[in-house]
Amino acid sequence: MRAVTQRSFGGPDVLEVVETERPVPLPAEVLVRVHATAVNPVDAYIRAGSFPLLGEPPFVLGWDVSGVVEEVVPGVTRFAPGDEVFGMPLFPRAAGAYAEYVVAPSRQIARKPAGLSHAEAGALPLVGLTAWQGLVDAAGVREGDRVLVHGAGGGVGHVAVQIAKALGAHVVATASASKHDFVRSLGADEVIDYRAADFTEATGDLDVVYDAVGGGYGERSLRVLRPGGVLVTAVDREDAALAAAAAAAGRRFAGITVEPDHTGLEALTALVESGRLRPHVAHVLPLEDAAKAHELVESGRTQGKIVLTP
Amino acid sequence: MRAVTQRSFGGPDVLEVVETERPVPLPAEVLVRVHATAVNPVDAYIRAGSFPLLGEPPFVLGWDVSGVVEEVVPGVTRFAPGDEVFGMPLFPRAAGAYAEYVVAPSRQIARKPAGLSHAEAGALPLVGLTAWQGLVDAAGVREGDRVLVHGAGGGVGHVAVQIAKALGAHVVATASASKHDFVRSLGADEVIDYRAADFTEATGDLDVVYDAVGGGYGERSLRVLRPGGVLVTAVDREDAALAAAAAAAGRRFAGITVEPDHTGLEALTALVESGRLRPHVAHVLPLEDAAKAHELVESGRTQGKIVLTP
Repeated sequence: MRAVTQRSFGGPDVLEVVETERPVPLPAEVLVRVHATAVNPVDAYIRAGSFPLLGEPPFVLGWDVSGVVEEVVPGVTRFAPGDEVFGMPLFPRAAGAYAEYVVAPSRQIARKPAGLSHAEAGALPLVGLTAWQGLVDAAGVREGDRVLVHGAGGGVGHVAVQIAKALGAHVVATASASKHDFVRSLGADEVIDYRAADFTEATGDLDVVYDAVGGGYGERSLRVLRPGGVLVTAVDREDAALAAAAAAAGRRFAGITVEPDHTGLEALTALVESGRLRPHVAHVLPLEDAAKAHELVESGRTQGKIVLTP
Repeated sequence: MRAVTQRSFGGPDVLEVVETERPVPLPAEVLVRVHATAVNPVDAYIRAGSFPLLGEPPFVLGWDVSGVVEEVVPGVTRFAPGDEVFGMPLFPRAAGAYAEYVVAPSRQIARKPAGLSHAEAGALPLVGLTAWQGLVDAAGVREGDRVLVHGAGGGVGHVAVQIAKALGAHVVATASASKHDFVRSLGADEVIDYRAADFTEATGDLDVVYDAVGGGYGERSLRVLRPGGVLVTAVDREDAALAAAAAAAGRRFAGITVEPDHTGLEALTALVESGRLRPHVAHVLPLEDAAKAHELVESGRTQGKIVLTP
């Protein structure tokens, strides 16, 4: 099969398409024919060597997949060959979705949402679970909560806005001016241009801040949270100083990592199928353009997601 | 830390206790201080080399754990240090619970059931999920169903009897005569001595047969299933001839493999806490007696489970 790999850490141009063997599913796993995978910022960190989660190269990146079950190992009853599925397999101990086939533990995939293309469904798992687990599992967002989403036009942010709205929250969003129409179209009630205004003056008394940006946004966000409010961040999850500042201020700090899990995927499927969630795909590129896809993701200017198709 | 390992495939005496480094949890994982682990037949197959799921030795066996969270990687919010948890981490790509510490993906563990000792909770995950996923996810057992459990006195079987009863089924069980009192104490409505009687003459018109024995039981079980009834088997899951025979007879074949999953663990916790499920621990041995524990499991004469404690 064709897969994207790299022989060394480095810039986007280390990514190359090679011919390699199909991966072999183990017990409790299935083999999925990849129709779409998505590029996430974490992929670029691993590619560059700044977050060497997969060890030394060579390896195949890619945790998002939408595709069709090609083969099930005897003993798997949740899926059968031909089923359309999506998910986020093998994180964090292996990856592999920048390829024609990927293996997936049965409990790390779910039925693909009806009404989404493979490109859309392949854009959803990692950002969708990151948003869902942050808003629901970590912060417990409820109807009527006031929720601020930083980076509302990006991969995680644009899904977080929709999920917060679906949960019944009043959603305040920060984004650059060029993304305001997009963010409003997602359902945000208020949109703040972070370059033109100080969000700490433009909003306040929030129940939850979901920070998909990092780099100083977290600490400033403590000021706009109500006492007992929750700061959710996947970006600054290891920031002990921020956690301490939150505790000192009487706010709750929830640093999160995405966790592969079928129950979250099933929740996302339900949201999509009830018309309340739709991932936005900015560009669909072939595997051969993986380097270009990484450049786009690293630019930070993309609305929504970059998808690769084998 | 101390851990049981092996330098070659072989009999129980290849198992030895060594000093080794604590495993390091990755993102989305926790480090668990092991208070109890259980020995499962699959461990013996891997130890002997007949099912080389973990590759070549050395490796540390053990998929069951009950213990206390020692450390969480920043980003994990489901658990905190000090939490009592149980689960079945890392199957099938790694293992490691025959040790003082094991790493566990957050979504492959759950809160330890209240009212169980660590020895009891450590005995439950693999057999409990094997029984739950077979009876509920694969066979869809409902109130009033007639369910036959083969090997009802063994590790999986003794849990399957209790779960089937909790689901409201009428439970018929096969076991050797010496285990009949035990199996009746689990709630079985009818118990058949498979040596004294042909179960195909002693029962029939069943909705589900759960075969935890294998070796010919599966094919004979097709005769006692009603049309459309389900044969569940983890032992003969790869038996294509049996699957074909079931299809030809108008019965459904469900070969299953256990899948690590917090939702099943949570269901087991609920059953335990409502008084409907309790794993039976036959022997508790120290890690140093891992060889003896394997001998006991391979003897097939144990009622319930063999547990190791570090």
